[in-house]
Amino acid sequence: MRLALLGGTGDFGEGLALRFARDTDHEILIGSRDPERAREAVTAYEDTLETHGASGSIKGFTNEMVADRADIVVLAVPPYYVGDTVDAIADKLDGDTILVSPAVGMKRDENGMHYHSPPAGSTTELVANRAPAGTPVVGTYHNLPANTLADLETEIDFDTPVVGDTDAVQMVISLTNEVEGLRGLAAGPLANAREVESLTPLVINITKYNSELDEAGVKWV
Amino acid sequence: MRLALLGGTGDFGEGLALRFARDTDHEILIGSRDPERAREAVTAYEDTLETHGASGSIKGFTNEMVADRADIVVLAVPPYYVGDTVDAIADKLDGDTILVSPAVGMKRDENGMHYHSPPAGSTTELVANRAPAGTPVVGTYHNLPANTLADLETEIDFDTPVVGDTDAVQMVISLTNEVEGLRGLAAGPLANAREVESLTPLVINITKYNSELDEAGVKWV
Repeated sequence: MRLALLGGTGDFGEGLALRFARDTDHEILIGSRDPERAREAVTAYEDTLETHGASGSIKGFTNEMVADRADIVVLAVPPYYVGDTVDAIADKLDGDTILVSPAVGMKRDENGMHYHSPPAGSTTELVANRAPAGTPVVGTYHNLPANTLADLETEIDFDTPVVGDTDAVQMVISLTNEVEGLRGLAAGPLANAREVESLTPLVINITKYNSELDEAGVKWV
Repeated sequence: MRLALLGGTGDFGEGLALRFARDTDHEILIGSRDPERAREAVTAYEDTLETHGASGSIKGFTNEMVADRADIVVLAVPPYYVGDTVDAIADKLDGDTILVSPAVGMKRDENGMHYHSPPAGSTTELVANRAPAGTPVVGTYHNLPANTLADLETEIDFDTPVVGDTDAVQMVISLTNEVEGLRGLAAGPLANAREVESLTPLVINITKYNSELDEAGVKWV
């Protein structure tokens, strides 16, 4: 399977790329608006994997090119770029390509982070509204700490809720569970995306007020 | 210390009463609008404790009477009763009595549960607005599964976020951590209550779509 990480040069894209490349046999495609940056990121990720005695298949191209080739496309971009990113790749999506939305709209104030959803109700639903009709859309990975993912020395044991159409959710959960220490948990259809996205500001707030939980994740027990 | 559970005859009150009675030395006061129901609940809880080879100090009175005696008052009532319950006990609260709000406004549809906050922003902030000025208000215990708490055979290992004024939050966290397998996690001031309350519908939705996680809790790892 080919897994594309759009905005794959950012911290979160790096974490996902390293974990998926190390722990699965899938081909990881790093997308960026600038293909040169994507290729530089691939070189850096390959170096990191080698340092940890690991390897994997990673390639870098433009966002459009990786979306064209991939079976699953993760929109690892900031929430305010999500809509434009979907527009940019729209004509590369066939009805089978699964779009995965991990972005969360938030506002920070002196107390902490607060959930701030777009008019669509959630960023995941915004993606579903902007994508071509019939595109399977899944919301997940919102609550995973980027730096912990990117640090391959750290053994993880994290859950991540997954919302969307049942078949696409099951496919993304299967893929997610191939990564050591990650478990996807079905959380219902897209209409439940708000509740899933709202977990992220809570995780950040708990990190802010409990320094020992910096870069922690959440587990259902 | 005296811990009052208003609405302590319900499922959630039962769970808290049994765990606090078994695991701490504090006096547990069960409040109900009907003092006879409170006394019946106390008898039932004492029987349950005895069945499990445990004991504890539990007494039952009206909501007003337990609020008058307690150091910490938990509003273990449905969200639509919270405001009236605060009004009913308002003249029994001195400036030191900590009010704890565990209720969450939610709406259920065919997909699952959705967070539905009052105009105050959260039920915890509604409590703060309705309570006499200067009353320390804390929001916590929203995400704890009532039936698991009430089943003393089940060893728990749950986290619960805690919001409010720093001193009151620290006192409630200390109390919470006395219960075996419970850990309170500071999540900031009352302004962060929405993010804390929003976790509950997500926990319920994940339960709905993952039957093996029925009555599960959440842990920061």
